[in-house]
Formats: sequence, structure tokens, C-alpha cells
Amino acid sequence: MVQRVTVVGGGVIGLSAAWFAARDGHAVAVVDRPSPHGGSWVAGGMLAPITEAWPGDEDVLRLGVESLALWPGFARDLGVDLSPVGTLQVAVDRADVEVLDQLCAHLAGLGRTSTRLSTRELRALEPGLGNVRGGLSVPGDLAVDNRALLRALRDACAAAGVRFTDAREPADVTVIAAGAWSRDLHPALRTVIRPVKGEILRLEARPGALPPPRHTIRAHVSGRPVYLVPRTGGFVLGATQYEAGFDGAVTAGGVRDLLRDAEVVWPGVAEYALVEIAAGFRAGSPDNAPVVDWLEPGVLAATGHHRNGLLLAPVTARRVLTLLREGGNG
Amino acid sequence: MVQRVTVVGGGVIGLSAAWFAARDGHAVAVVDRPSPHGGSWVAGGMLAPITEAWPGDEDVLRLGVESLALWPGFARDLGVDLSPVGTLQVAVDRADVEVLDQLCAHLAGLGRTSTRLSTRELRALEPGLGNVRGGLSVPGDLAVDNRALLRALRDACAAAGVRFTDAREPADVTVIAAGAWSRDLHPALRTVIRPVKGEILRLEARPGALPPPRHTIRAHVSGRPVYLVPRTGGFVLGATQYEAGFDGAVTAGGVRDLLRDAEVVWPGVAEYALVEIAAGFRAGSPDNAPVVDWLEPGVLAATGHHRNGLLLAPVTARRVLTLLREGGNG
Repeated sequence: MVQRVTVVGGGVIGLSAAWFAARDGHAVAVVDRPSPHGGSWVAGGMLAPITEAWPGDEDVLRLGVESLALWPGFARDLGVDLSPVGTLQVAVDRADVEVLDQLCAHLAGLGRTSTRLSTRELRALEPGLGNVRGGLSVPGDLAVDNRALLRALRDACAAAGVRFTDAREPADVTVIAAGAWSRDLHPALRTVIRPVKGEILRLEARPGALPPPRHTIRAHVSGRPVYLVPRTGGFVLGATQYEAGFDGAVTAGGVRDLLRDAEVVWPGVAEYALVEIAAGFRAGSPDNAPVVDWLEPGVLAATGHHRNGLLLAPVTARRVLTLLREGGNG
Repeated sequence: MVQRVTVVGGGVIGLSAAWFAARDGHAVAVVDRPSPHGGSWVAGGMLAPITEAWPGDEDVLRLGVESLALWPGFARDLGVDLSPVGTLQVAVDRADVEVLDQLCAHLAGLGRTSTRLSTRELRALEPGLGNVRGGLSVPGDLAVDNRALLRALRDACAAAGVRFTDAREPADVTVIAAGAWSRDLHPALRTVIRPVKGEILRLEARPGALPPPRHTIRAHVSGRPVYLVPRTGGFVLGATQYEAGFDGAVTAGGVRDLLRDAEVVWPGVAEYALVEIAAGFRAGSPDNAPVVDWLEPGVLAATGHHRNGLLLAPVTARRVLTLLREGGNG
């Protein structure tokens, strides 16, 4: 049954859901009000379920692993390149070493491969690493250029007949996929979804600087998580995490922390050109798991993806499609 | 005698000279190719000859003091606001305390007033100061919003009949006032003028943050000079200094140093929004003094102002006018 579907939100979740729905024959419109603070626009582009897998988040891990398996086909259909970077989680102090041992055991218990590496082994993989105390190699993680992805998704949507509009239209089904802003679009989401601000920096190698890392490099420095995600000629450095409402300012303190922490892990960052500073809002949820379900007849939510919006896009879009096919309408 | 004058350069020196020349009855054109790296566009806006006055630079000090005296009238004619900020030069370690004692004595020897202040006295003036070891209060320094100034100068030029063009035109007199780029515009400047790169940050107070400082605050931290120049609702933080040709990249290391050093002096900076990062080129000269003179018949230079382009604009424009009136043509 062909339905009129309006997707509210032009980020990676909304566009992916719209694209899948349009290819399934539905008449789809996307309500898109671009924001410089959109979570998928500001994202680092890691597709890394494993190194996000801390004890207690097993459901998110399972969903992430399922979605990661969908990514190669998803990217191929979109004509988007994936970088098979793998992740190096490195330890910068003694406490980290213990945490990595725990993570390694936790992953083994879940049947996931990870390899403890000495500092010497890490340096063989990434000569630019700083004074680290060994780490963990997690194969299989991917990375994607999030902005190239958004462009490709818009093109794919347009090619599949999706219309873009800036105001909501009457529809058989409305899909609320507006990231953190979803909380203002339905009473049921009001207490569930909250903005979790994150700041990122984009850096480019200057002539004579060390080439960018080839792996995604992650660490905790002074209790703060930091990651470097390779891009052609540079990398994305992220991410701070604040619960501060919708204040989209990039703070001096956030930039200071990111640069300081990155330099501990990868000292060559100092010679890089800082080409962008940005803040975005992740859609936080109480259990860090996304909300993809009917809210009421004719209204579907696809939000709450927190740090994992890019990773979970294909599995979320597939789930939305299933819900539309079932026509449950709540 | 009315002359056709072409001014090459649309920064503060070129515009000031063009404005003065047009008001004096000359037919003036400004060749303007705006760059995001122009020295006066990126500047902090300090008009502070005294705290730039280190032993050996007495000529620059004399010229700076002369120009500072012209500034109130210059600003009034342009309709630009001046902030009578005064400067607090603060000490952050024991070595600084000695340097400030020397500077105080040096200034007294030149007949200039400055007052040594205890940390307590400094904090009474600027409650946001960090863990400093006293300082020096230098009255009389001014600050100007450099971008408002550039807009006002363009308007004043236009009102005085100056034409703006993007290509050089035949003229009786050509004034080379292209800042660091002047070196490429005349053989005599090639070995004299060099680009001295500087990076600055612009910060704005977020709700709940400490109000910006009311004085210009200067210090040396780990041997690096740092200044905070008040703006409405924020301040400009500068400046790094590199001899690195015309590489206009803002480096991660430069931003790191500026934020780190500012935080020593004024810890509240961390809560500010970082709204701009920029790099510009000062026009360096061998003796830090500007080159304002005939290079050959019909060709006049007004460049080499290094860190003092804004400060020296009125005295430079006045000197250019004198040279035009004398009609020396070399």
C-alpha cells in the first residue's frame, strides 16, 4: 500500500529513512531545516560499534554490529567511500591500561576480537603516536566522510522521488527524525530525548607536517574521551560532551581540551591547520539506545541515536521500513 | 597642484592615506584586493605605544606616541568609537616581575607615566585576573574595533570621492600601502618588508560567563606575548608571531598556545564562545619602524608597520600628505 510519508529531519537518519521509504514505493517528503549544529553534519564519521561497547550497553553494541554489517552495501548503493580504518584504543596512563584489559576481556566474552598491543607495536602501525602505554587494536571499524554521506543521501533521495520542503505536510505517516530537536515535536519525546552537545575540530596537514593517522585513534585523557578520525589530508578531532541545552557555542575550554588531549595522543597535531571548529547536538536518550517505534497512529519516531547516528542509519532505516510495511500505525 | 594618486592597498594604512589625500583635493583611487589575512582586518585593535616600548625601539615609541595623540581627532572625524581602556601589563612569574621593573624604569627615563600595582590592586581593577604576580598600569592606551574602523574608513573615502578599483591605474603618484604584500610591488621593498604571521582568536561572553575585561591585559607566558583587547561583549585574544612566509593557515599549536596563555592570565576565558580563529600578515621591517618615503619619482611607500599599523595610521597618512604636498617625487 502506497502511503504518503513525511519525514521531519534532513540528517542522516531522516534521509536514510526517506530514501528507503521512497525506494519502497511510498510518496515521501522530507521537511528539512538545515542547522549548522545538526548531529550528522558535525559528526566525526566513525562507524565503530566495538569501541563504543562498554559494559551495560550490550543492546547498543548488538544493534551497532548489525548496522555495521549493513554499511558496505549501504555505502555502495550511495556511491560513498568507506575507509576501513580499524580503531586503535590507546592507554595514556596506568589506570587506562587496566581499563583496556577490562574492555579486552569484556569484548572476548561477547565473542569479539580485539588485540592488546605494546607501545612498540602501536608505533609500528602509527609512528605519530605520543607517549602512550600500549593499546588495543579493534579490526573491522569503518569511517565515512559524514558530509559526503549527507550529500550522497540527498542526491539518492531526490533520484528516488523524495521531495524536500521546509514545512510539514499532511501525510498518512509522519516520521520524526529531527535528532535532538525531536523532543519538541511530540509530547512522548519531550522527557525522553535531550540535546547532548559535542564540539569537534577539523584539521588539515600543512606542508611538512606528519601525514594524518591511518587508523581511528581513541583514548581517554584526564577522564575525557578523545578521537582522531582520518580524512583525506587530515582528520576530525572530537568530541566534547556537555548537557547544556541548545547552546550551540563552541567554547574556548572545549577547544583547549580537545587540542591538549589530542596532543598527548598524537603530538603532530600542533603543526596542523585548524580549519573548522563546530558544535553539534546529539540526540541523547535515557539508555543511550535509539527510539524507533510508533508514538501514536500515524506518527513514528526515529531518534535518540546519541553518538551513533551515522553507524545506526542503515539499521534504523530498515526498521522504519518494516514498521511502514506492517502498517501498524501504533 | 591636484595629482592623480593611486593607493595600492585597502587596509588601514592605504585607506587612511587615500582619505587624507582625497580631502586635500587629489584625485584618488584605491586598488583593493581584500584578503582574509590582511593585517588590519585580523588585528586586535590596540592603540598602545607605551607597552610596545621596549629598549631599542625608541623611534617607534616616539612615532607611536605622536600618532596616539592624533587618534581622538581621527576617530571623531570618522565617527568611530575609541575605548579608553588603558593597559595592564601583568607578571605571571618571578622573571616577569624583574622585566616589569625594568620597563617601569625605562618608561620613567623617557618621561612616561606607569604605575606598579600589587596583585591585590590589579584584582580590584580586573577581578577576573588569574594567579598573577603584580603588574604595571599604563594609562592613556586606547583600543578601537578594527573592523568598524575599516568600514568607517571606506565610507569616509567614498564620501571624499575616492574610487575603488581592483587593478592599478596610471597615476602621477602611486602609494604602495599593501602591508606585507608590498614586498612584491617594488624592488626596493623586496629585501626590506617581510610577512610576519600572527594568529588571533575572537571570543564572546556566554550567558553566565564572567564579563570581559575592561582594560587591555598583556603578559608574557612561557616567553610568548599574549594580549586580551576588550570588545563589546567579548575580547580579541592575540597574538602568535611566526616568520613563515605567506602560509595563512591557523595552526592547532597557535590556538593551543593562545588559549593556554590566556587562561593563565584570565581563567574565565574557558567559558567564552570561540567565535573566530584567524591569521594575518603584519608587514615586518628590519628595525620594526615603518617605511614611509619616496622609492623613486612618482612612487611612494607606506608600509612596514609591523604590529603598529592601526596605531600609526593617522601619523602615516599625515606624512604621506606632506610628501604629496612637497611633491618631491623622490
